[in-house]
Amino acid sequence: MSNKFDSGKLYHIKCTGDALVTAEAHSVDAPITLFGACFCPFVHRVWVALEYLGIPYKVNEINPYQNPKPQELLEISPKGLVPALKLHEYNPPRALNESTIILEYLEEVAKNTGKRSLLPPTNNPYARSLIRLQADHVSRILIPAWYRYLQAQDIEKQIAGGRDLHDAIAGLVKLFERAEEELGGDPELRKSLGLWVEGGDLGWADVMVAPWIYRASNVLKHYRAFEMPQGDKFNAWTQRVFNHPSFKRTCSTDQLYLDSYERYAYNRPNTSQVADAINAGRALP
Amino acid sequence: MSNKFDSGKLYHIKCTGDALVTAEAHSVDAPITLFGACFCPFVHRVWVALEYLGIPYKVNEINPYQNPKPQELLEISPKGLVPALKLHEYNPPRALNESTIILEYLEEVAKNTGKRSLLPPTNNPYARSLIRLQADHVSRILIPAWYRYLQAQDIEKQIAGGRDLHDAIAGLVKLFERAEEELGGDPELRKSLGLWVEGGDLGWADVMVAPWIYRASNVLKHYRAFEMPQGDKFNAWTQRVFNHPSFKRTCSTDQLYLDSYERYAYNRPNTSQVADAINAGRALP
Repeated sequence: MSNKFDSGKLYHIKCTGDALVTAEAHSVDAPITLFGACFCPFVHRVWVALEYLGIPYKVNEINPYQNPKPQELLEISPKGLVPALKLHEYNPPRALNESTIILEYLEEVAKNTGKRSLLPPTNNPYARSLIRLQADHVSRILIPAWYRYLQAQDIEKQIAGGRDLHDAIAGLVKLFERAEEELGGDPELRKSLGLWVEGGDLGWADVMVAPWIYRASNVLKHYRAFEMPQGDKFNAWTQRVFNHPSFKRTCSTDQLYLDSYERYAYNRPNTSQVADAINAGRALP
Repeated sequence: MSNKFDSGKLYHIKCTGDALVTAEAHSVDAPITLFGACFCPFVHRVWVALEYLGIPYKVNEINPYQNPKPQELLEISPKGLVPALKLHEYNPPRALNESTIILEYLEEVAKNTGKRSLLPPTNNPYARSLIRLQADHVSRILIPAWYRYLQAQDIEKQIAGGRDLHDAIAGLVKLFERAEEELGGDPELRKSLGLWVEGGDLGWADVMVAPWIYRASNVLKHYRAFEMPQGDKFNAWTQRVFNHPSFKRTCSTDQLYLDSYERYAYNRPNTSQVADAINAGRALP
């Protein structure tokens, strides 16, 4: 370790708290196996969607940083990244990776089997597009800003990082407000616009961003003294997200996240493919 | 201009060749107006999709680099970026931007009105996911590599850029091959897997990547002596894409692209928001 404040904590390899209870309840074979790591926000997205959409699944906690990487992971995820799904309805089983692609898959599977949906109805492509714009902003702007901030070591870069993250969140809020303003007048449609809207249920963009907003509230607060954006509406939204049953059930205890992210906070070498990409100014893997 | 070889050519503001004929055929009011610029590959994606899906539209050629930016563009695209759609079925008209979001919108509109589709059928979420993986690779890996290569000024960076782009194309081919191998045995499904597959029609990932592959064949060839990947199957694919009526109809003449991309090839300051993002190692705007 190059930093004297880095206590050398290791990432966890097993869920804690509510997430542990949920993982144990999903430890028997099911048509879909989720390969995941307890701290990983990309896995967290998929887990929340599985819970919300009511799709049967099994959790397989795996250590994606093990060297060499676990063979059973490489078989279904070429870069050895989590999340990955193993689909047992096919023979031989098939695989999917990339959290955003997996979310599209789960949403369509749920749709085809008459379950819940995270997006507005298919007869309203415009409403779906406004929600997709929110999710696109999260993936392309907010998430890279989040990691740059946590990995920044110089104080100037940390200040710039915090500002960039606040700007990214403000950009998301603007897109939330746009959807509510343009579409929120229709009481039926309103329910499908996500938790930003009063009376809305968990939505596509909520699931896309929640893991990082949650880790902002504990990890960034701890390592960067990050202050969440102020405002009653923003605060009400985060509370609705954090307390939504499908999200809450997939959260470990704060200590797990604090321990697991110390590597990022001191930008230790070989932290992860995500960390390397951020350091190199490249797209996330 | 900082480079003595830079002849200072300006980007074009009006289509030429086949694209001009198509633009003129779509110059009267329609429910959707496409705000576009003739050289822009992100606009090109949307234009091809409109042609293929058979959705009525009007083309409004606009100069997105005008200073200040055109007010009518800023009204529908907050960053002043093209492509943007103006949707006249609403009062007041609504707007959409971001090429990938617009493609999802057009695909769903076409679906709802019984037109063609660029994706495999909705009853096969797995097949759709494999195609989405291809498109995701294009947006996150291939396109940034394309711009880094063209903007690289040092010879070492140009060599690395060429290698990265070849790797990115090889990664896409691998995903094409995966879809064909896993799903190509079903003759009906086969048609929806894109032009990589013999007997396939124009597909989602073709539309996502075609504008950059085309500009590799002229712009990168001219400014970087880029050689397209070798191989009969790759060559057959590019020929099927370049000669597909929906693509061909939206292409200007080579000279337009050569002129318009000289700014990128010499990495002139203030070339575009895309160029700035590449230079800064940030996500594309």
